[in-house]
Amino acid sequence: MQLYSFFNSSTSYRVRIALALKGVAYDCVPVNIRIGEQRDAQYVDGVNPGAAVPALVDGEFRLGQSLAIIDYLDAQYPQPRLIPSGSVERARVLEVADLISCDIHPVNNLRVLRYLQDVLNVTAEQKDAWYRHWIAQGMTAVERLLTRSGDAGPWCFGTQPTLADCCLVPQIANAQRMGCDLSPYPRSLAIYGHALEHPAFAAAQPQVQPDYIA
Amino acid sequence: MQLYSFFNSSTSYRVRIALALKGVAYDCVPVNIRIGEQRDAQYVDGVNPGAAVPALVDGEFRLGQSLAIIDYLDAQYPQPRLIPSGSVERARVLEVADLISCDIHPVNNLRVLRYLQDVLNVTAEQKDAWYRHWIAQGMTAVERLLTRSGDAGPWCFGTQPTLADCCLVPQIANAQRMGCDLSPYPRSLAIYGHALEHPAFAAAQPQVQPDYIA
Repeated sequence: MQLYSFFNSSTSYRVRIALALKGVAYDCVPVNIRIGEQRDAQYVDGVNPGAAVPALVDGEFRLGQSLAIIDYLDAQYPQPRLIPSGSVERARVLEVADLISCDIHPVNNLRVLRYLQDVLNVTAEQKDAWYRHWIAQGMTAVERLLTRSGDAGPWCFGTQPTLADCCLVPQIANAQRMGCDLSPYPRSLAIYGHALEHPAFAAAQPQVQPDYIA
Repeated sequence: MQLYSFFNSSTSYRVRIALALKGVAYDCVPVNIRIGEQRDAQYVDGVNPGAAVPALVDGEFRLGQSLAIIDYLDAQYPQPRLIPSGSVERARVLEVADLISCDIHPVNNLRVLRYLQDVLNVTAEQKDAWYRHWIAQGMTAVERLLTRSGDAGPWCFGTQPTLADCCLVPQIANAQRMGCDLSPYPRSLAIYGHALEHPAFAAAQPQVQPDYIA
């Protein structure tokens, strides 16, 4: 199994966590999205028509989109299960994962920040304000979802990591890297701190990937 | 069952399609996102801490995020199934649904376009170019995913509508409304044309919703 991945891509980071939690061995094939390798014809035609990372190659089967990949891995390697089977528990996990994946990450990813900078010529201050705005709006919603149940953790939902944690941890890592104030989200920060002590989460971090650029 | 919805919200439109396909009766509770009703304290505290539409209320259970809602409905009302159970078929459906939901829709939704206009003071031409840029990039990827298998349709995957169609149709409706050239995506357009002839898709369209504003 191969994972086409970029060390600093938070969607790749999600899948690396899932693979590590399940103990699935794979080869990491770096795709440098900073220089647009995800749009190379060879990659698009041969690996991922979606022209993005991550992409999983499992024998003849090729799949893009981080959440679809984790759902696939959950079927192929059910232990530990990352998306619960019970309909209510499952809905709660997907709600948080989708909020991060649809409402927070896409508006702040590399291609969008580059468009702001290169096409709309926004200043560095405007770009940072954009980033912080969507983090604040999105993390406020995440924190509300994670606190309404009174769940004591230490994970997003109970005592085992789920897809929600696979999405939350890379998002918080990104926000910290960009200097966002995360103090209004103590429950999210506590989950993040707990996660980084887990070997699977530690092994999936950007700075320990083979394609890491300092 | 109640669906908190806005006629012109494409994430609400996805869920309306799913409910109509399954023949589930529900009350539509309009939330006018043009005037920010999704951020009212009563709505956030009582219905959706995510401060967005759509939200489903099923007895005591409240759920936000369109894809999480459709997954929940698929468990509660399995006929017709919108997310296949076979791992490869399922992965293909989720890949297209996630591409639309994560890579296309979020960067072009109302809150983002308003930020461009009100905070970054971009011109109408710049805003239109932004919209068209992400539609072109995203729909190119969708079209590639939908054509690589040689699937004859008439739906995204075979002879029955799935979650992928629930996401594709509102996205194309939006792009058409914004005047995007969709002629480079004939397979997607053919699916769209077929879908609008289906009673469930027709009933879910914005212009026949109780909160429609001409």
